[in-house]
Amino acid sequence: MSKSLPKRSEDYSLWYNELVKRAGLAENAAVRGCMVIKPYGYAIWEKMQQTLDGMFKRTGHQNAYFPLFVPKSLFEAEEKNAEGFAKECAVVTHYRLQTDPERPGKLRVDPNAKLEEELVVRPTSEAIIWSTYKNWIQSYRDLPLLINQWANVVRWEMRTRLFLRTAEFLWQEGHTAHATAEEALAETRQMLDVYAEFAEEWMALPVVKGVKSENERFAGALETYCIEALMQDGKALQAGTSHFLGQNFAKAFDVQFQTKEGTLEHVWGTSWGVSTRLMGALVMAHSDDEGLILPPKLAPIQVVIVPIYKTGQLDELLERIRPMQQGLLERGISVKVDDRDTERPGFKFAEWEMKGVPVRLAVGMRDLDAGTVEVARRDTKEKMNLPLADIVQSVDQLLQDIQTNIYNKAMRYREQHTTRVTTYEEFKRVLDTTAGFVLAPWDGTPETEERIKEETKATIRCLALNEPDEDGVDMLTGKPSARYAYFARAY
Amino acid sequence: MSKSLPKRSEDYSLWYNELVKRAGLAENAAVRGCMVIKPYGYAIWEKMQQTLDGMFKRTGHQNAYFPLFVPKSLFEAEEKNAEGFAKECAVVTHYRLQTDPERPGKLRVDPNAKLEEELVVRPTSEAIIWSTYKNWIQSYRDLPLLINQWANVVRWEMRTRLFLRTAEFLWQEGHTAHATAEEALAETRQMLDVYAEFAEEWMALPVVKGVKSENERFAGALETYCIEALMQDGKALQAGTSHFLGQNFAKAFDVQFQTKEGTLEHVWGTSWGVSTRLMGALVMAHSDDEGLILPPKLAPIQVVIVPIYKTGQLDELLERIRPMQQGLLERGISVKVDDRDTERPGFKFAEWEMKGVPVRLAVGMRDLDAGTVEVARRDTKEKMNLPLADIVQSVDQLLQDIQTNIYNKAMRYREQHTTRVTTYEEFKRVLDTTAGFVLAPWDGTPETEERIKEETKATIRCLALNEPDEDGVDMLTGKPSARYAYFARAY
Repeated sequence: MSKSLPKRSEDYSLWYNELVKRAGLAENAAVRGCMVIKPYGYAIWEKMQQTLDGMFKRTGHQNAYFPLFVPKSLFEAEEKNAEGFAKECAVVTHYRLQTDPERPGKLRVDPNAKLEEELVVRPTSEAIIWSTYKNWIQSYRDLPLLINQWANVVRWEMRTRLFLRTAEFLWQEGHTAHATAEEALAETRQMLDVYAEFAEEWMALPVVKGVKSENERFAGALETYCIEALMQDGKALQAGTSHFLGQNFAKAFDVQFQTKEGTLEHVWGTSWGVSTRLMGALVMAHSDDEGLILPPKLAPIQVVIVPIYKTGQLDELLERIRPMQQGLLERGISVKVDDRDTERPGFKFAEWEMKGVPVRLAVGMRDLDAGTVEVARRDTKEKMNLPLADIVQSVDQLLQDIQTNIYNKAMRYREQHTTRVTTYEEFKRVLDTTAGFVLAPWDGTPETEERIKEETKATIRCLALNEPDEDGVDMLTGKPSARYAYFARAY
Repeated sequence: MSKSLPKRSEDYSLWYNELVKRAGLAENAAVRGCMVIKPYGYAIWEKMQQTLDGMFKRTGHQNAYFPLFVPKSLFEAEEKNAEGFAKECAVVTHYRLQTDPERPGKLRVDPNAKLEEELVVRPTSEAIIWSTYKNWIQSYRDLPLLINQWANVVRWEMRTRLFLRTAEFLWQEGHTAHATAEEALAETRQMLDVYAEFAEEWMALPVVKGVKSENERFAGALETYCIEALMQDGKALQAGTSHFLGQNFAKAFDVQFQTKEGTLEHVWGTSWGVSTRLMGALVMAHSDDEGLILPPKLAPIQVVIVPIYKTGQLDELLERIRPMQQGLLERGISVKVDDRDTERPGFKFAEWEMKGVPVRLAVGMRDLDAGTVEVARRDTKEKMNLPLADIVQSVDQLLQDIQTNIYNKAMRYREQHTTRVTTYEEFKRVLDTTAGFVLAPWDGTPETEERIKEETKATIRCLALNEPDEDGVDMLTGKPSARYAYFARAY
């Protein structure tokens, strides 16, 4: 905690990297492109998992677990999916190491232990799961099949960033099968709503719900829905996707069912996922130059109590703090008393600020005698003296206020950084000044999108679901445009 | 559910395989040696996870996540560990696939995407974790470091069985670092106690706590503690292990700390784990020829209500069942009403028996009018008519009785299948008749143990912690023996 963070305004990227490390969220592993999720970071991820898992179960999904490895012949079966992921696959080719005859004490791959068929470490599990569904689905009575999996996946990325883009990451992937296209589409949209609700209610992160353009669609999907959020540097971040797979995987893996009427049809599929990338979004959306700002609903520690005392007084003070601590716990508030006798209060304050604990109580003997507590909120840095008598009630209310305030702040930021333009000059100027989302008329072709991307590094984040069709003129080609698209530079 | 299970007495192994599949717990995956854990099986595993996770947290551990891949140079660092796992490692050698020029539409490994250093898919995580701990530990203030991870691991097994031995499995692995050997040993034993408590209290599975002989020790440990359980075919199953690593990994990865006195010392380590293997133990210890028998504390569905009705009466009956259903839920009992109108009661009874639901209520209009409910317990197959008025209380009590009864039954079985012998003839005779644990004097040498294993397929499961030293004569060599060891044939 000795030196301060780089400032967002000076080097946003460096600020992010340093913050993730110094708040104890994650660090780079000894393995290229992989990360170690540290206990404090993992505690936040666990809260995300528990919340999402409950939401999945309430919408009728069950968890299961499918293998890490995908035999190459299965991986190939859905061609577009295979093509989309082939370039970033870790491949297992051998199943044994042996002592290296030329380097005593060292190991090498055993040349006699080559697999007959290579195994792909799953970059996503459609192939392995749909090859299984073939045996699980025979009749309309087996539908809908609503399964989710919590797992690790590997995509061999060349340029990695903690949480945002790592070779291995943790995620959940839902894979469902339905009797009709309508049901599958309804499921796709339902899960998008679940993700949006989670982002907004729990992460305090406003999101735009939309549908991807063809260029940005999931490989093997007919339609990809997404939620897009804005970070404090004006870049967009895709926070979750929900795919309508049509009958692509059902056909690739021959998954058919007998209808009520006795005919045989291919089932309709969806898949949807969010990952530890959400951790990156959480950090980047809310935090400041002093450290993390966590929404109370996802904070592993919601309240930290720092005792202020003279040498020798600590035990007595801790004793007097206990009822308050107990009261908070009984209200369901997670509270930590920082009783370390080796560090000074100023050090502790800075550390808990770095870790984004929403509320800090500084408590000394004199305060207790006077019946007050010094309360500091992390989001606004306000300090106030509140009566000890109803401190539990006050803190509870404060936590709710903080949750709302963080959301509102992020929403204001997004509103201020969403600009409608009609000309390409304006488009480029906004990207380089205000940044954020730029709503612009688009002629609907992949070629135009590609050209804009090459020239400006901005991509279409989505066609927002709440955006009405609107006749216009494509800012680049002058061709007719039926919709305004959300463009942005993105993570 | 159409045909019955193979009988345990006729083919125990086939009975197990069929039961695991037909109860909906797991099945073989399209990938050699891997399994798919199906929703019902995964629901039991989730209950195990939640319970264990709570126990780990209450004993001061935090969760974190470390990479799936171990670079070969790290994997090699602790020589014994590397040697022990080298023969069963899946190895990633390439990071990209490409279109196969000779087979259109097919993929092949891109020969230009060979990794400079091969990556081992973790068979266990000591190497990757201790290479990280080097940066986390500087001072005595950083100790103890108490970390757990829930993860998948891969050990390339040639002969696999669902849950018991699969190439990929799910587990938790605790990895802790301490200032002294005493503290590390205390941690090792504490976690063994946690495992034993979980096995006995939750799985209703009596276990022998002990320490492994040198031959069976974890590669890289100074001492391996274990819990050993007995299955219904008289074979033993290792249900969990807790390793005292000494300073082996600290030295291999140079993890030193500054003591309070200012000297520099290597830290002391432990690691401990249980896996989805516990699912196999749960199935094999309690179930019968009709299907699973689940201990109520781990049953995803504790009570199933089967409505008995005439055509057209179902809705009315379900309405009348609702208060009972609600009452059970409010008592914290997980209850399912099997309201399928497509299946007959007999079919439903058989299905829920196969799935091991502890208590079944069969409820018809006439029962409700008479104020009674037909209650069947899965473990003893007893049926009784109980008053509707206090059915919630009765069922709650019954669930507790079942939990106890299953444990007691397993304990009686173990007692009847634990035999003390003094001669090798007796030893071999018992193995081939009663089977189970055979307590026999052992001279303490790996050579004798190895010979016994070759001649009888029995191994030393452990030297039990509660077994006093006792002078004797090794049954095989005639050399002095200081201890009776627990021998058994094992999974």
